[in-house]
Amino acid sequence: MALIVQKYGGTSVGSLDLIRQVAARIIREKVAGHDMLVVLSAMAGETDRLLGMARSMSPDPDPREVDVLISTGEQISVALFCLACQSQGYEARSLLGFQAKIRTNNLHGQSRIVGIDATRIRDQLDRGLIVAVAGFQGLDEMGDITTLGRGGSDTTAVALAAALEADRCEILTDVNGVYTTDPNICPKARKIEHISYEEMLEMASLGAKVMDIRSVEFAMKYGVKIHVRHSQTDEPGTIISEEDEEMEDRVVSGVAYNKNEARITIVKVPDQPGMAARILKTVSDANIVVDMIIQNTSAGDPGHTDFSFTVPLLDFEKAMTLVTRLAEEIGAERVLGDDAIAKVSLIGVGMRSHAGVATKMFAALASEGINIRMISTSEIKISCVIAEKYTELAVRALHSAFELDREE
Amino acid sequence: MALIVQKYGGTSVGSLDLIRQVAARIIREKVAGHDMLVVLSAMAGETDRLLGMARSMSPDPDPREVDVLISTGEQISVALFCLACQSQGYEARSLLGFQAKIRTNNLHGQSRIVGIDATRIRDQLDRGLIVAVAGFQGLDEMGDITTLGRGGSDTTAVALAAALEADRCEILTDVNGVYTTDPNICPKARKIEHISYEEMLEMASLGAKVMDIRSVEFAMKYGVKIHVRHSQTDEPGTIISEEDEEMEDRVVSGVAYNKNEARITIVKVPDQPGMAARILKTVSDANIVVDMIIQNTSAGDPGHTDFSFTVPLLDFEKAMTLVTRLAEEIGAERVLGDDAIAKVSLIGVGMRSHAGVATKMFAALASEGINIRMISTSEIKISCVIAEKYTELAVRALHSAFELDREE
Repeated sequence: MALIVQKYGGTSVGSLDLIRQVAARIIREKVAGHDMLVVLSAMAGETDRLLGMARSMSPDPDPREVDVLISTGEQISVALFCLACQSQGYEARSLLGFQAKIRTNNLHGQSRIVGIDATRIRDQLDRGLIVAVAGFQGLDEMGDITTLGRGGSDTTAVALAAALEADRCEILTDVNGVYTTDPNICPKARKIEHISYEEMLEMASLGAKVMDIRSVEFAMKYGVKIHVRHSQTDEPGTIISEEDEEMEDRVVSGVAYNKNEARITIVKVPDQPGMAARILKTVSDANIVVDMIIQNTSAGDPGHTDFSFTVPLLDFEKAMTLVTRLAEEIGAERVLGDDAIAKVSLIGVGMRSHAGVATKMFAALASEGINIRMISTSEIKISCVIAEKYTELAVRALHSAFELDREE
Repeated sequence: MALIVQKYGGTSVGSLDLIRQVAARIIREKVAGHDMLVVLSAMAGETDRLLGMARSMSPDPDPREVDVLISTGEQISVALFCLACQSQGYEARSLLGFQAKIRTNNLHGQSRIVGIDATRIRDQLDRGLIVAVAGFQGLDEMGDITTLGRGGSDTTAVALAAALEADRCEILTDVNGVYTTDPNICPKARKIEHISYEEMLEMASLGAKVMDIRSVEFAMKYGVKIHVRHSQTDEPGTIISEEDEEMEDRVVSGVAYNKNEARITIVKVPDQPGMAARILKTVSDANIVVDMIIQNTSAGDPGHTDFSFTVPLLDFEKAMTLVTRLAEEIGAERVLGDDAIAKVSLIGVGMRSHAGVATKMFAALASEGINIRMISTSEIKISCVIAEKYTELAVRALHSAFELDREE
């Protein structure tokens, strides 16, 4: 008999019928002898509906009250789920954030869990009840309702699994697991059986939106092994855990891409100390997050250097305006902007011990005639910026070059 | 500067626009220098929508989970109200039942308030905030969400007014106050300026559905003076308070009626001790609430008596089946049922000190050719059962006979 935490996302509980199906799955595990702790999101579309009401009420709605409003979504889901269990003959109890004693800081709309007192949950599980906790919500020190931000129910599940030392933590969703790359682009994409936290973090931040990135960080911190799988099949999905030797043998685990960035280049920046900091401060003061940053040595043109960086596509116009003004002030030649770029990345913990990955990557892109505009590397990732139109071609070329379609 | 508690019902907060209007009203009082505590119901239709979901999930839904589900209605109202205040430049804070420390017993769906710790509310009012409390909900000893039943937000408002010793407790609704009778039946019906708790209880239980009856009981118990008024005008409504001399001078305060009862008569019941108890036990064991009960002496037919009582119309068929079976067992002659009856009642604390009210009532009905089927009296009420088709005629006749259309 194991203690299993299962989290179901909004599309998995998007109607009364789907909630009944979730109840049936949980009951099946219960009947098999397991203690079942369920974390539910709001029914698909509900959070957006409530946010729409908030915004039509106030252009800049008070985050405290928005949290009171949108936390009703998960409240409705857990109550309906318990009724569904009951109608199938099994007892279930819902617990809201304040009842499950999920304490958070007070950053409304993007709170972090600071502690869980699992006494009541444990007690109800011991009494043989199915327990359903409303995801996404908690209570701060003041006794106010908080929410954890988009995808927060994943974090609720992982945090509960950690607090209760659950045997299994499963994230049930509308995909079969984490893939070597986007199957919509590359039909040969293969489900990864086992991936490390670090790799998953890189995959997630690059746009493979299977799980909320903060829940993976949380799982890594507390060593919670996660199983991401489809909510309507029994097939195994992807296990996310600490890295092991098998993963290190694999050079590359996946190919990620991101089309939502734009590149800005300042040409002929005077090569003086502090110039990079000044440029970045201008951008970050406007709350624009910079991703890649490239500055080359000024060997070819002494006294000047070209400075490039990428920003989210949504902030591109704003960043261009700010940087163009700055370029005049610092006496740079001009500013170039390009919003038709994409970033393709190879990810794998095996890179740490395998040489030649970058060479092979550049060669694979070159063989398809794809020019590389920017390169950045980290311990377990190599990213190249290319023209957006080549994205799919590049992903498929890299996927083949590194034989990701081969069974493990 | 006064502390004012105002409660707005579902139709008064039935849309985002109406919530904005309520916010504007509250702000006007706030600007006038008052401390404002607002109690809100769910938006019109929301509770029924949620109950519909519960019922389609389970034929006999667990009351604990139903409370979790339907309490979201008021939660949404208070959050939107606070956002509306904010958008108009004023700070407001919502408090749910558990945050307002409204403690109840654990009768889910029909809980009673057992205590309120108003410290947090007082603190927020002292800081100059408008405070909005979700009506209808509380928390039991276990830390579970409870609801107070239909009309429960009225009780929330009265209980908060009592706990905070508020200067005014106003119930804002979609009528102008309590009327001498139903204006839809009697165009001469007049708004009552001042009515006693006892009279209001009789009016409410007889179908003048302005306020929830339990909130009036609560107000009577704690001596909270209530002002019932329209949510969209500034006209004074009806004050409900302890009775005073002025009220006693008035013989009759109002005429109520109820078409939702049916009469059952058992003919020739053997006149033995314990027979009435046996009949009523049969009915009440089936959870059917009996209203009027009439048993006459058996002078004309020694050894037998006729026994009549009224039950809710909805329970009529069930009661007839039970009573017909019983009549055979006890050797009564037969059972007569009539579901086309109405009860018309005169209500007034002045009856205690004025003779001849009943005589005048029976005469007024007789002069219209209306036969009286049953009569029952209490200290401040006289009720007659008549044929349903005469209801409107009877109400108008009584209203005129007691000159209720005359200005006070």
